[in-house]
Amino acid sequence: MTTASICTIGDEILIGQIVDTNSSKISQALNRIGVKVRYMLSIGDDREEIITKLNKCLEQTNIVIVTGGLGPTKDDITKDALASLSGATGYKESPEQLAIVKRILSARHIEMLDINLAQAQVPDSCEVIPNKLGTAPCMKFPFDEAKYGHPAVLYSLPGVPFEAEGLLDDILDDIKKHFTLERIIHKNIITYGIPESVLSKQIEDWEDALPEWLHLAYLPNTTVGIRLRLSCYGADDDARVARMDEEIEKLRDILGTAVYGTGDDTLQSILPRLLKCPPEATCQETISVAESCTGGHLSELITSIPGCSRYYNGSVTSYSNSVKINVLGVNPETIANFGAVSRECAEEMARGVLNLMDTDYSIATTGIAGPDGGSAEKPVGTCWIAVAHKNRSTGEIEVATKKVLSMSASRDVNIKRFASNALDLLRRFADQRLF
Amino acid sequence: MTTASICTIGDEILIGQIVDTNSSKISQALNRIGVKVRYMLSIGDDREEIITKLNKCLEQTNIVIVTGGLGPTKDDITKDALASLSGATGYKESPEQLAIVKRILSARHIEMLDINLAQAQVPDSCEVIPNKLGTAPCMKFPFDEAKYGHPAVLYSLPGVPFEAEGLLDDILDDIKKHFTLERIIHKNIITYGIPESVLSKQIEDWEDALPEWLHLAYLPNTTVGIRLRLSCYGADDDARVARMDEEIEKLRDILGTAVYGTGDDTLQSILPRLLKCPPEATCQETISVAESCTGGHLSELITSIPGCSRYYNGSVTSYSNSVKINVLGVNPETIANFGAVSRECAEEMARGVLNLMDTDYSIATTGIAGPDGGSAEKPVGTCWIAVAHKNRSTGEIEVATKKVLSMSASRDVNIKRFASNALDLLRRFADQRLF
Repeated sequence: MTTASICTIGDEILIGQIVDTNSSKISQALNRIGVKVRYMLSIGDDREEIITKLNKCLEQTNIVIVTGGLGPTKDDITKDALASLSGATGYKESPEQLAIVKRILSARHIEMLDINLAQAQVPDSCEVIPNKLGTAPCMKFPFDEAKYGHPAVLYSLPGVPFEAEGLLDDILDDIKKHFTLERIIHKNIITYGIPESVLSKQIEDWEDALPEWLHLAYLPNTTVGIRLRLSCYGADDDARVARMDEEIEKLRDILGTAVYGTGDDTLQSILPRLLKCPPEATCQETISVAESCTGGHLSELITSIPGCSRYYNGSVTSYSNSVKINVLGVNPETIANFGAVSRECAEEMARGVLNLMDTDYSIATTGIAGPDGGSAEKPVGTCWIAVAHKNRSTGEIEVATKKVLSMSASRDVNIKRFASNALDLLRRFADQRLF
Repeated sequence: MTTASICTIGDEILIGQIVDTNSSKISQALNRIGVKVRYMLSIGDDREEIITKLNKCLEQTNIVIVTGGLGPTKDDITKDALASLSGATGYKESPEQLAIVKRILSARHIEMLDINLAQAQVPDSCEVIPNKLGTAPCMKFPFDEAKYGHPAVLYSLPGVPFEAEGLLDDILDDIKKHFTLERIIHKNIITYGIPESVLSKQIEDWEDALPEWLHLAYLPNTTVGIRLRLSCYGADDDARVARMDEEIEKLRDILGTAVYGTGDDTLQSILPRLLKCPPEATCQETISVAESCTGGHLSELITSIPGCSRYYNGSVTSYSNSVKINVLGVNPETIANFGAVSRECAEEMARGVLNLMDTDYSIATTGIAGPDGGSAEKPVGTCWIAVAHKNRSTGEIEVATKKVLSMSASRDVNIKRFASNALDLLRRFADQRLF
């Protein structure tokens, strides 16, 4: 099996100042074409360390993908280390990349400097894959099979995430030219609302009966729920793929309404299905949001889906009580009698935004994200959620509510839990209405 | 210098299904106490590989922090590998962790299962640091100095981010007992609005004159801007620390109004300063937001700061034109004549939300995040931003606007750029008013 390592370079990663998101994207892409990623490694801006570790990666895997350390500034030394590692005799200019550098700087009205010109200079031992989205090129270093005892290629990418991602298709095409790849298939079933230990108990017998070439993993995520991933190695065998599909169906039967999606589905990506949207056209039903404690996160999740304007009218973040009262029409007495964090307030917020934005569905959240605030009765982590639906013929509004208690000390985690619980309540409410 | 490796275990990371955020948090914490992180490594759920690589990490660094692979389910094999690596003769029960497991399951109304009980079982070669936030304990494995030729300790943490983070303080205290630590100081200056290559040219002479023990790094981030990080090794020397502060002041002079913060400041975290907030009390000025293309992200950024209710009233996400018109009071003719993505519409949105939510400041965004939509005149990536301020004595509203053109193909990146540009426009507008 063709294997890969992914190596990120930069002190900023080792001191924890930025999170490496490139490795994950690169890994997904490699897996898609049947390359197994064995290692991800982050090392600092140290020339000798870079050379030593990349050599090790090349000894242990066929493909090494390096990101970072290619910027125009002096702390970026990857290119020099790669020149040495690959035995370059000097530098050459990449005319394609130079043209791109000139175009980008001119479009951004930035003056061309020597350090920009230097970005189009590459070791003479590499082939350039032009980076259309940024100034630093992708460099490819192929190695003689004799050097590492197996075919080996190193690709060096810029660290800027959208530039690295933009280069991936070209790199995948190039990898396919060098290696004969075995097939891996990953399939996901996505659940929300069952704790991991309970879920694993429910599917215990099913899991014990899986063949050894079919591997199960649990991937819990605050926003998504628990993804169950089945991976099939040696998927060139049609019988295996068919068996994989059968096992997925069995899982669906066991897990019932906890299952809401497959593949890369999220609670927000399934809204078009819930709202009966024909492809590319206006949806039969629309939705709006009223947020308090989630502060805009719920709206952000919904608008992260391209094309959401077909069904999403908008939201009100009513962070102050005056906005709850004056914009959403919450009764001041409701807040005085029950508090802003209450079933009654959540319900009035949902009704208020439904009417204000004239939508078929609405979702409302009101709670205490912390770290400060709360009381014995309503501790930090408490959130009331309401979803509403208007029957267009009768004008009648139906509402469902739920109280969530998140046990996290983190404001960020609480906000994510509240938002995903709200989307899950909508899903269960709408699905029940639909089927 | 005491060194560390951080090792994450899990196939889900190697196939790119989840992004490792733990390593970054752990690394920040280690750096804070003067431990230098040399490597971050991710490996799969493979018993032999885990043992081999952790051995290598223990050979090369003093401290090894392992996360992941401790869940209750069958794909989690870290504990078994650690038992073998540390020469355990068997398993023992941790009474403290067992009590926590019982408390957590009972609070969540989850039935206690054998796999939950098993989480309190640990190799007899380890010491347990109880994990109060989850069911899997932190395990500490100290090694004889003879084994690796230097003092070495391994800590194994659960992979759930808030659980790992919750254990860090206990682990740092424990590390301080084992090692005498040298001091590292990192200081940041944070800028917005200057491209990296221009910035590096501006500070070139200053950078060339830095002493060799003072290291500069550029950390560009779509939401934050460019952070410049100065790192001082051997910071027990007071003269070095004083020199570091001097260099920071020189940088401020060179970079002028591009500098907006230090430390962990972000464009949203400086709002209390811009809005003249006394500590813990209500602020002199308040703010509201009207979003279109940013879809809630701007509001989410503002509410990510604990205590923002002192100055933030709320937002309207006006994703549809009808909400722009009916809720924010945008004139339908403005949209008909100039389009929803226009200076005129942005300005009316800012005025509209300022009045609707009765705030002193407001920010509005309207643009095209993509990937689809746009035109030759207004391509994907175009955004109009407006900020407004009301003079409470005269009732007069002052407005500033700006057009942003983001060159990214990614919806997510465009949204982040629009939002950070909007916060930057507010900062420049308010700062100019303040000083």
